[in-house]
Amino acid sequence: MNPGRGVVYLVGAGPGDPGLLTRRGGEVLARADVVVYDHLASPRLLDLAPASALKICAGKSSGHCTLNQDEINHLLLEHAREGRSVVRLKGGDPMVFGRGAEEAEYLTRHGIAFEVVPGVTAGVGVPAYAGIPVTHRSAASAVAFVTGHTDPEAEERGGDASRRSGLDWTARAAFPGTLVVYMGVTHPAAIGRTLVRAGKPADTPAAVIESGTLPSQRVITGTLGT
Amino acid sequence: MNPGRGVVYLVGAGPGDPGLLTRRGGEVLARADVVVYDHLASPRLLDLAPASALKICAGKSSGHCTLNQDEINHLLLEHAREGRSVVRLKGGDPMVFGRGAEEAEYLTRHGIAFEVVPGVTAGVGVPAYAGIPVTHRSAASAVAFVTGHTDPEAEERGGDASRRSGLDWTARAAFPGTLVVYMGVTHPAAIGRTLVRAGKPADTPAAVIESGTLPSQRVITGTLGT
Repeated sequence: MNPGRGVVYLVGAGPGDPGLLTRRGGEVLARADVVVYDHLASPRLLDLAPASALKICAGKSSGHCTLNQDEINHLLLEHAREGRSVVRLKGGDPMVFGRGAEEAEYLTRHGIAFEVVPGVTAGVGVPAYAGIPVTHRSAASAVAFVTGHTDPEAEERGGDASRRSGLDWTARAAFPGTLVVYMGVTHPAAIGRTLVRAGKPADTPAAVIESGTLPSQRVITGTLGT
Repeated sequence: MNPGRGVVYLVGAGPGDPGLLTRRGGEVLARADVVVYDHLASPRLLDLAPASALKICAGKSSGHCTLNQDEINHLLLEHAREGRSVVRLKGGDPMVFGRGAEEAEYLTRHGIAFEVVPGVTAGVGVPAYAGIPVTHRSAASAVAFVTGHTDPEAEERGGDASRRSGLDWTARAAFPGTLVVYMGVTHPAAIGRTLVRAGKPADTPAAVIESGTLPSQRVITGTLGT
């Protein structure tokens, strides 16, 4: 054991296309001893790490090889304490809906050195690959990133938590700019209807993008009301 | 002249640190014939282009070598029409307050092939380097990017344009999440007061970051009311 020498890199892998990893991300991957990666990151990125590096799938969105946050934190800590260079490879950017803040706090509490390597977040990279600018001098002077992994209409019918979510959607609908809903692919119609009820015009242009920046990318365009 | 062979890459250079350029951005820079770059991009990034490449400063924020948008558009068009590989290197991401959409539209109108290479936008990369997560499971479930290059209090005292800006700041203050104000360094106190008048609690944590991700980065933290 070689305490104090290990380091953890919280690296944003970008939204999918391996070309969207940063140069700094590639650098730290190339000399990693351990890579703890999410299901979201492109598997091709792992080829950038040495063949000898230990590669651990942390999962998160698919069924198999899924670790919980405590297990991930513990893994990072243990390998760093052994003096290893550990890359925590996360989809998009580590600090935008990535729970990178929790990992950073945990490492800080345990005295482990870490570096955040920001990434292209999906809300920036995915619309670009779909030909949709998130800001435009004559159309949108601001952009907001929110999450939509739960069904807002189911929440409305639910109990206490629903009230807070309802207020959130009203404030979101009033935001003067483009609204990017992360993880909104499961409930796009419910999100559209909720935004219209909250005050967004039904003819607001809208797009649903699946597997953004990957060869399998699918884009459906329309309006919020459709 | 070799029409139809030229291509323009609209590349996001990231917020400042040259390590935050994407691998795809580095790839297209390495084989560029022409680079049209902004004052914002790190000058060290130009070393990634071939020594023989023509490097044109488009400026935008400093006094010298500043071209207007029409001149930039025209440059991209002319060099692409000559069959060259043209990199338009922009600070942050080309589509987040970058006027990349206008350049893409112009190139489309003139039948020039182009590719958008997204970048780490300042609103993601700069807070990360300052140790501030823009989302956090227990503190902020959303993040919005707005611009603050004009003084909101001066606008309020002004004429017609001020009304729209005032409404915008009210909606911004109501946004349920972290608010990142781009180009807010010139009027941070006025922006803070405007947000408090619009309803944000005066004790909302706030930070002002200058030269983010660069060695010269400066961070001042406090609250909106200070």
